[in-house]
Amino acid sequence: MNYSPSNPDFFNRDRFVLSNGHTCLFQYVFLHLSGYKHMTMEQLKTYHSDRPDSYCPGHPEIEHPGIEVTTGPLGQGIANAVGLSIASKNLAALYNRPGYDVVDNSIFCIVGDACLQEGVGLEAISLAGHLGLGNLIVLYDNNQVTCDGSADVANTEDVAAKFRACQWAVLDVANGSEDVEAIVGAIDRAKQITDRPVLINVHTVIGYGALNQGEASAHGAALGEENVRQLKLKNGLDPDLRFHVPQEVYEFFSDCVPRGQHSERLWEEKVAKYTEQYPELAAEFARRVAGKLPADWKKHIPTEFPSGPTPTRKSSGLVFAPLAKAIDSIIAGTADLTPSVHVSWPGARDFQKPQLQTKCGLGGDYSGRYIHYGIREHAMAAIANGLAAYNRGTFVPVTSTFLMFYLYAAPAVRMGALQELQTIHVATHDSIGTGEDGPTHQPIALPAFYRALPNSLFLRPADSEETAGAWEAAMDFKHGPSLISLSRQALPQLGVTARDKVALGAYVVKPEAEPQLQLLATGSDLQLALKAAEELAGRGIRTRVVSFPCTQLFERQSAEYKQSVLLRGKIPSVVVESYAVNGWERYATAGYSMRTFGKSLPGQAAYEYFGFSPHRVADRVEKYFRSATPEKLWYFEDLN
Amino acid sequence: MNYSPSNPDFFNRDRFVLSNGHTCLFQYVFLHLSGYKHMTMEQLKTYHSDRPDSYCPGHPEIEHPGIEVTTGPLGQGIANAVGLSIASKNLAALYNRPGYDVVDNSIFCIVGDACLQEGVGLEAISLAGHLGLGNLIVLYDNNQVTCDGSADVANTEDVAAKFRACQWAVLDVANGSEDVEAIVGAIDRAKQITDRPVLINVHTVIGYGALNQGEASAHGAALGEENVRQLKLKNGLDPDLRFHVPQEVYEFFSDCVPRGQHSERLWEEKVAKYTEQYPELAAEFARRVAGKLPADWKKHIPTEFPSGPTPTRKSSGLVFAPLAKAIDSIIAGTADLTPSVHVSWPGARDFQKPQLQTKCGLGGDYSGRYIHYGIREHAMAAIANGLAAYNRGTFVPVTSTFLMFYLYAAPAVRMGALQELQTIHVATHDSIGTGEDGPTHQPIALPAFYRALPNSLFLRPADSEETAGAWEAAMDFKHGPSLISLSRQALPQLGVTARDKVALGAYVVKPEAEPQLQLLATGSDLQLALKAAEELAGRGIRTRVVSFPCTQLFERQSAEYKQSVLLRGKIPSVVVESYAVNGWERYATAGYSMRTFGKSLPGQAAYEYFGFSPHRVADRVEKYFRSATPEKLWYFEDLN
Repeated sequence: MNYSPSNPDFFNRDRFVLSNGHTCLFQYVFLHLSGYKHMTMEQLKTYHSDRPDSYCPGHPEIEHPGIEVTTGPLGQGIANAVGLSIASKNLAALYNRPGYDVVDNSIFCIVGDACLQEGVGLEAISLAGHLGLGNLIVLYDNNQVTCDGSADVANTEDVAAKFRACQWAVLDVANGSEDVEAIVGAIDRAKQITDRPVLINVHTVIGYGALNQGEASAHGAALGEENVRQLKLKNGLDPDLRFHVPQEVYEFFSDCVPRGQHSERLWEEKVAKYTEQYPELAAEFARRVAGKLPADWKKHIPTEFPSGPTPTRKSSGLVFAPLAKAIDSIIAGTADLTPSVHVSWPGARDFQKPQLQTKCGLGGDYSGRYIHYGIREHAMAAIANGLAAYNRGTFVPVTSTFLMFYLYAAPAVRMGALQELQTIHVATHDSIGTGEDGPTHQPIALPAFYRALPNSLFLRPADSEETAGAWEAAMDFKHGPSLISLSRQALPQLGVTARDKVALGAYVVKPEAEPQLQLLATGSDLQLALKAAEELAGRGIRTRVVSFPCTQLFERQSAEYKQSVLLRGKIPSVVVESYAVNGWERYATAGYSMRTFGKSLPGQAAYEYFGFSPHRVADRVEKYFRSATPEKLWYFEDLN
Repeated sequence: MNYSPSNPDFFNRDRFVLSNGHTCLFQYVFLHLSGYKHMTMEQLKTYHSDRPDSYCPGHPEIEHPGIEVTTGPLGQGIANAVGLSIASKNLAALYNRPGYDVVDNSIFCIVGDACLQEGVGLEAISLAGHLGLGNLIVLYDNNQVTCDGSADVANTEDVAAKFRACQWAVLDVANGSEDVEAIVGAIDRAKQITDRPVLINVHTVIGYGALNQGEASAHGAALGEENVRQLKLKNGLDPDLRFHVPQEVYEFFSDCVPRGQHSERLWEEKVAKYTEQYPELAAEFARRVAGKLPADWKKHIPTEFPSGPTPTRKSSGLVFAPLAKAIDSIIAGTADLTPSVHVSWPGARDFQKPQLQTKCGLGGDYSGRYIHYGIREHAMAAIANGLAAYNRGTFVPVTSTFLMFYLYAAPAVRMGALQELQTIHVATHDSIGTGEDGPTHQPIALPAFYRALPNSLFLRPADSEETAGAWEAAMDFKHGPSLISLSRQALPQLGVTARDKVALGAYVVKPEAEPQLQLLATGSDLQLALKAAEELAGRGIRTRVVSFPCTQLFERQSAEYKQSVLLRGKIPSVVVESYAVNGWERYATAGYSMRTFGKSLPGQAAYEYFGFSPHRVADRVEKYFRSATPEKLWYFEDLN
């Protein structure tokens, strides 16, 4: 591998992903041996200790030098590796010139049995084969042991045949426990295969050399004193020394640092000459390496929108298309919903292997920035994490599908939040307003999850103006995923919304000099709240309305601002949202929400069916208001 | 297929799952033609209409006669079909006797390209092959068109080779658009293959006969007047008649009803003779067919537990093992965590194909009730839905993995809730207390999702006593999934808990004559709240404590009971839970919770690190209490 222990961020380094993250001690030890300074012997002793400053957590974490992505939840790592591989392929296609391969690294990944059973892994494997990612080398630690016993208790498929069916090359290492040369040879051969990803099927014995080698007990449990002792003896080590590396081992690894530095120097020289030869391209490349957006990117957000009713998914497309065209860091894609999600742009080129011939004539090459992820939502989000992790800011990955299918993708979106990786997820067809597709496609509980997720934004804009604000907030949020929740159906332009205020999380859209009541609403429910407020005004109740596109951004505001919006303890405040109300109770005194799953009806009919009409809302809220005692402000009430 | 339109619930019917649920018009039309009475021509006209009483929603729904499972989210249906197939195999192995195949039905499933790309589908396919489910026949509508264009835009793998690698038989139909005989022939051959599942790869042309046949536009959009007109002409139909079925077509289908009734009669006669021959077995079988548990099942729940600290996952095992032994309807399994999750029982037999020879010696047969699902959490939950849908009450499927991995499984658990299918999910290693595995394995936001999910229970018991109560509540909850959230670490037996009160959702565990403050807590946080309350008492604050194992059960209680527990508007009430606080704001005036992801530390150290110690909680809560004004009761405050 090409890497530089003295500079873990060396841009053209090979990336290594330990997809079976629970084996991280292996990785920590090699970081130590190969000269990553932070990974001292003292640090190695902190594994499973109570030291909060440990560099050796129970699974590898991206925060620590030498770790490319946080792994642990199985199947995520191999999908991340596919993202890293796409990143490298894309940069190489865009910036390499004859004689100047400024990006020519490989992506290595180790997987165990589990990553090859998990759906997210299987999705990523299928897509990697389709894309012909020739820079990706996966080593399969094929020890055939899992927690339940031998792996054949749950899986007896022909893994190699399956990979070949997915257009991977498969190499075999018969005796991976002993035959190091065969492993090295296989890696060398794998590097020669550049038209497809390679699986190296390394047959190993778990706990090799231990008394319980090959058994499930060698998988998770500690070996114990005696077993370790005999293992050390067997390997010519002094059994009485603990946490001790013989000098000859250090010597064996001693060239890692200088080799890495040499490799860096060669690359820097190459980039210097490249800069002379291709100054403009090199400037662009340098900006991407620095992880920066074009300086004036915000000017590409349209200032005007069509005045008529527009689905916010379409408003989103109007904002996104010029942004994506202008910002080369954006790499977008969809889980087979191009016609529905509006995340493409004029002139967008597909990321595909150049040789691909499709029946419908679509094709592309590796310089493309639009990815057809297939119907693989989970892998899509995990691959987006890999793209974002390649080098912070070099890519701004954008994914898209229906909001409901961000439940399929949720484990990966969560991993992105944990790693503080910027990704933007365009979630269309939100709420019961998505209509005829019915309850299977109408989210109810999902927003409660995304609003509770640390390091993330769940943005639900109400019209085109707020959609522009949501995109700006998402582009500005560098330390985690943003999910933009958009309507399938047309929504009116409300006139009272303001893009700049989306960043506040919530703001007053219909003020009242002396309000008696207020309504809080988001997205497609805001128009309803505004109409209900008018109706309530007609009934003599001065009703203020607050637009609340993002609870997480609102939480970042000052206590004063928050109270100026919420008027807590002052007047009754009813949140109107066609989702489960969970989580809104801190902002509202009552909720008009969904307490059941949805129903297959045209969007407007679904709203009516569940009482989401201005008249029904006004009636129920008025009843609540008229019966309100000061005591009622003390606790939350469900109005439906 | 063997089915009876006049009795859609005929027990020994073949099951049919439309995994590509968006093509449901196809299914509705065949239900009409084959004589399902409810599916009138008038009903067929209600598709995509605003009639709430439609039997033709945008995706098939289990509520309606002739629909076995609700499908739509792609990949779920094929996994459900695997569950139905396991159900049938298991009943056949248990109850069939020579000459008396009282269960001998087949499971049919139609999939499109998407179900074969989705991870959950791929997991299920792999497991079905491993289990050798010879009663499962999947027809692949291989039209090679998806929303984005031809399917080869995102997928160019060799599907047949992949299935063969997964130990399926694959049959081909070259011209599925025209060659009906070839399809029938393939199904006949598939029925002869009884040692493995069969994929029939039916090559079709999408929108066959339409002017845009074979194109992506024929996938989602309506064909339009002229296109339909020429299609009718081409097929010898009168183009001026709409919603019209020629009499000869009805005649062709006219034997479906009598054939079904004949089939029922034969089965009833067989069962009658079987009952004479095997009266005891037949009585058991009759109870399973009726979907009933053994009458006295509750007596198997232990009344006593070890008095020492016990992880609730182990308490759960102590409750579950005797239940599972006694209740033959229980069919349990794990996503490769047998040693950790405690859902096995003495004498449990594995559900496996009898021929299986594993390296570790584990084996089983189809009469087994313990399923090694492999590391396939999503398919596990979807398969559990299929088991539950086979016939309500015949199976009580129990799944298990770490709580965090019920995020992987969430789309399937949600589908179970939508279908009101009873399943029980044993979710161990909850909260930051799971310790060293670190933030990847420590759930923060997930409980907010499950508590917001309609038709479900999220139960978090605090000790062995409450764990017994949680199992009783889950067994009693027949109309949706229950998720029991359990600790990895040992928890003390609190003495003040009561199993019977778990069904109330929340109850007072530490009363106070005139309380000034109260703490709400669940699971492993309850012991902490009790200790903090003691400390607060020592500081002169009379503190009451409420155990809150299930918010959804609490919501079903009377307003009076709820207020008697919550004392809303009376005293400050602080929820203490090591999760995101979202959703608790309706019950509490303040929250001591997690606002970030967790950390890799031993469980106790993680609690300390995040301030979850009695002392730190007492300090912060006291400060809140001392500064409390009546106004403070009006709104929710984060204490960390």
